[in-house]
Amino acid sequence: MSEQEHAETPDTTSEKLVELAKRRGYFFQSAGAYGGVGGFYTFGPQGAALKGNIEDAWRDRFAVAEGNMEIDAPTIMPEPVFEASGHLEGFDDMLVECPECGESHRADHVVEDNTEYEDAESLPIPEVEEVIAEYELVCPNCGAGLAGQAVEAFNLMFKTNIGPGDSQPGYLRPETAQGIFVEFPRLKEYARNQLPFGVTQIGRAYRNEISPRRSIIRTREFTQAELEYFIDPEADEPDLSSVEDVTVTLYPASEQDAEGGTEIETTIGEAVAAGIITDQWVAYFLGVAKPWYEAVGVDMDRFRYRQHLPGERAHYASDCWDAESEIDGNWIEMAGFAHRGNYDLSKHGDHSGDRFTIFKQYDEPRTVERATVDPDMSYLGPEFGGDAETVVEKLEELAARNRSAFDGETVEIDLDGETREIPVETTGFSLEAKTEAGEHITPHVVEPSFGVDRVVYTVLHHAYREDEVDGEERTYLDLEPEVAPTFVGVFPLQNDDELETEAREVAAALREAGLSVTYDDSGNIGRRYRRQDEVGTPFCVTVDYESLEDEAVTVRERDTTAQKRLPIEDLPTALPAIRAGDLEFEDLEG
Amino acid sequence: MSEQEHAETPDTTSEKLVELAKRRGYFFQSAGAYGGVGGFYTFGPQGAALKGNIEDAWRDRFAVAEGNMEIDAPTIMPEPVFEASGHLEGFDDMLVECPECGESHRADHVVEDNTEYEDAESLPIPEVEEVIAEYELVCPNCGAGLAGQAVEAFNLMFKTNIGPGDSQPGYLRPETAQGIFVEFPRLKEYARNQLPFGVTQIGRAYRNEISPRRSIIRTREFTQAELEYFIDPEADEPDLSSVEDVTVTLYPASEQDAEGGTEIETTIGEAVAAGIITDQWVAYFLGVAKPWYEAVGVDMDRFRYRQHLPGERAHYASDCWDAESEIDGNWIEMAGFAHRGNYDLSKHGDHSGDRFTIFKQYDEPRTVERATVDPDMSYLGPEFGGDAETVVEKLEELAARNRSAFDGETVEIDLDGETREIPVETTGFSLEAKTEAGEHITPHVVEPSFGVDRVVYTVLHHAYREDEVDGEERTYLDLEPEVAPTFVGVFPLQNDDELETEAREVAAALREAGLSVTYDDSGNIGRRYRRQDEVGTPFCVTVDYESLEDEAVTVRERDTTAQKRLPIEDLPTALPAIRAGDLEFEDLEG
Repeated sequence: MSEQEHAETPDTTSEKLVELAKRRGYFFQSAGAYGGVGGFYTFGPQGAALKGNIEDAWRDRFAVAEGNMEIDAPTIMPEPVFEASGHLEGFDDMLVECPECGESHRADHVVEDNTEYEDAESLPIPEVEEVIAEYELVCPNCGAGLAGQAVEAFNLMFKTNIGPGDSQPGYLRPETAQGIFVEFPRLKEYARNQLPFGVTQIGRAYRNEISPRRSIIRTREFTQAELEYFIDPEADEPDLSSVEDVTVTLYPASEQDAEGGTEIETTIGEAVAAGIITDQWVAYFLGVAKPWYEAVGVDMDRFRYRQHLPGERAHYASDCWDAESEIDGNWIEMAGFAHRGNYDLSKHGDHSGDRFTIFKQYDEPRTVERATVDPDMSYLGPEFGGDAETVVEKLEELAARNRSAFDGETVEIDLDGETREIPVETTGFSLEAKTEAGEHITPHVVEPSFGVDRVVYTVLHHAYREDEVDGEERTYLDLEPEVAPTFVGVFPLQNDDELETEAREVAAALREAGLSVTYDDSGNIGRRYRRQDEVGTPFCVTVDYESLEDEAVTVRERDTTAQKRLPIEDLPTALPAIRAGDLEFEDLEG
Repeated sequence: MSEQEHAETPDTTSEKLVELAKRRGYFFQSAGAYGGVGGFYTFGPQGAALKGNIEDAWRDRFAVAEGNMEIDAPTIMPEPVFEASGHLEGFDDMLVECPECGESHRADHVVEDNTEYEDAESLPIPEVEEVIAEYELVCPNCGAGLAGQAVEAFNLMFKTNIGPGDSQPGYLRPETAQGIFVEFPRLKEYARNQLPFGVTQIGRAYRNEISPRRSIIRTREFTQAELEYFIDPEADEPDLSSVEDVTVTLYPASEQDAEGGTEIETTIGEAVAAGIITDQWVAYFLGVAKPWYEAVGVDMDRFRYRQHLPGERAHYASDCWDAESEIDGNWIEMAGFAHRGNYDLSKHGDHSGDRFTIFKQYDEPRTVERATVDPDMSYLGPEFGGDAETVVEKLEELAARNRSAFDGETVEIDLDGETREIPVETTGFSLEAKTEAGEHITPHVVEPSFGVDRVVYTVLHHAYREDEVDGEERTYLDLEPEVAPTFVGVFPLQNDDELETEAREVAAALREAGLSVTYDDSGNIGRRYRRQDEVGTPFCVTVDYESLEDEAVTVRERDTTAQKRLPIEDLPTALPAIRAGDLEFEDLEG
């Protein structure tokens, strides 16, 4: 994942969110007791639950509903995998080290933050060195001049050694995808050798960023949810009709290049018809993903699909779009959707001893004619001596390439720059008919690749709200019930044995009904509401003294703080119905 | 996790299971296209689903039902964490390298496999070298003599570098627990500074084994599910009454040591009363875990709790038991249950700048008397000169340690080996009363630590069945419905548009009812049954031509292969009821 990142600006919502995240157990920098380490974050109880719910929602949509297989591969992989994938050679960032303080910086970021260059990452290293010298750029840490410092390519993979010694290097995977690609020869068996099929994986990936920044947006260890969808490009077509009416905000490459270019509101169907989205499979997954993002709580007014510019796209990718969310005026990448051609599988096929192909059966067997030779060595031997074998090879190659060369009485071949004539009758030239049931093809791959942490961040940021309740400022998270860590908080009004017993029973009944429940009896009721508001719990249920008489409780809705009195016995059906979207709180009869 | 491991014996069930696991998508060695790497396995579609179901079942029991918090921490952690935890110094295996072929072996395994020594891991390195020389042990790979080869301590952590250069080493965590311990100062805030509280984590852990072996039982990358339960050892007691009647098979240390010692059948309550399980918290979690193992499908006739021998236990652990399962005559460790005292938190407290304590409020404030001194420097100065400050320190220390030393007219201190007398009146000795609301205590930790991969392996192994159906041999997995990757397979009897449409509708309705469903229309019906039997799918539903008339289908039960004709409309209630354990297949009315 690359990221369109602008200069950091002081930013209140993000700053407030990061503070709330730490205080309420969403996420915080790891190992704080030891001073912390850049780029590593721990998800606290709320964050782990939110992240897990988002992963489950992704699994439901991209694995289960699409009928794809999910696998779970190791995070450490051996070196040959990354020789094949190209990560060992090309997965670099530009590093410049300060001659004074010794701190390392991303050279392209130093350039972008201090010049008019917008995409320094795409510049060759010597040019970046020149720009640094020309603009007299300085170390962002200590202010020392960086001119004349060498800019180096720094590989972003974490390296380790497997087993004793260093004879078997291993790398932490930079993307979950490679754990799928390398197992293609086995996975295709599980798919019964039939295209198309998809394989998903949700798991950790690692990039040894030079300058991790912006909280959980650019970390060194993160979670990806990736789908690799394998297709026969000549035969398989997506079910575009199921997504053609999905409305989307697109920011095509042409608009990004144009003076005053802007986003376009359209539908998937129209965008394909107009040639804006050039690949049908990419269009299909963009259509599937948009309602998913909406369902987990991304604000659709702060969401767009941005097409990669031709220079930004990998050379093998025929079309590529990012899902982006707006965070305080900047757009960040949450996912990439690319048609990667047969690049990945053919690379592994070339580098390994296994077959990264599928046998594609013809509708009916095809008969093909093959030209072969069977030279008469009793003629070639005496005639060509030590060169006779070379002549045979040349004849074989010529027969395969240009059978009409054998039409006359003699065949001409080139031997050490000299043209030699050979009687056709001595070549044993013939045409053989061969019947073939099919052929081995290397499938193409369409890849929707999601960054889970960035979805978590976006969902929290887009849900952050401040309002005033009873004259007091309130902060709450307007999280979707499907992903909120807790769906309902249950409180006894006061610390009283009878109330606590009753409240615990209500909590147990709601848990039994499949809801995520928090029981809380600490502090006054106002503080408990505030606590649940801040973690984004959609509903709170309070058991009071009256409840012991009338078997009813107060149910409070998070966003409106509206309260209703409801019979306890109704809750285990009413609240799950609200969560499932079959019922609205407003329609509940109190 | 250590493992009681005996010499490998050729083993049919395990061998058959590993073959089935590969063929049917449970698990297989990773990166086979590149020759594979020892100790790394990929879970295929069935295995990932089974593992995920087991993790969910663990989460339900040990996090949700127990009211504990789940977190999600990075797998890479900085060096100071492991300096504090002791892993950097002491997390070693004994390595011996063959002088001929260069292969590395675990020296203790070479000894155990070829001598009468049973626990060579506990021997000091020089002694292992002596045993190798004395028994003239040879390389298991090439047969060259190992006598005289140095045995070395090999650290089992995977090392890497965080950021550019090697100034910030990082390690892949050898246990998920450290991700919890290091965040204690923050986690206690989420628990509102109240003991007891528990924190769980399910995630990857890594050990760079010298000789990974036995499929997914001893790998280099694996999944742990750990609970760290923080208690005040003086105040907190577990709810033993809730588990006292749980029956368990125990193998106490005393029986392991005894001639002809054997397992004991008892209950948790009796074992505590008899002093067999010495720690009540450990007893509580053993009582919680046993029904959990049973529910996910571990055969209780092949399950026991084995107490650690005194020499096997970590020095800080007061009691420790392993959950073990029997695999082809060997017992393997699936989990460890230890009372770790305050070892972990006090180590991190000592090594970091943060407080790994909880402020424990007294029931009512306590007044304590403190002895202090306030020496008269106008006396000490002239009397002791440059040693006056040292004398003051000695007086302060003496007052805190032994206030009765100030009872007489003079106080004696030791100064450079010489006893000196000081008039009490010049020391300013006095007793001060101080009122304290509480004290900072370092909580103790009780740790149930589960190896998820080993549960997966055990569940599959214990579920492996062979029988005969209609005169043909059949293999099936008798998996519990709660963890089976697929609960129901849905088939059209033949490839026919009408049947396929109807079958897909049935499949969709069952998915809607929350079941995990596989639709399969490939191959004849017998092959499809066999496929589902082999992956352990409890039920199959077949749509035939009659179904189009009577809206009924054939439902087949896996273990008995019994079939019933049931109305399609009943399935979305009947099958979930069976999965939930509220209904038996036998009781279904056809």
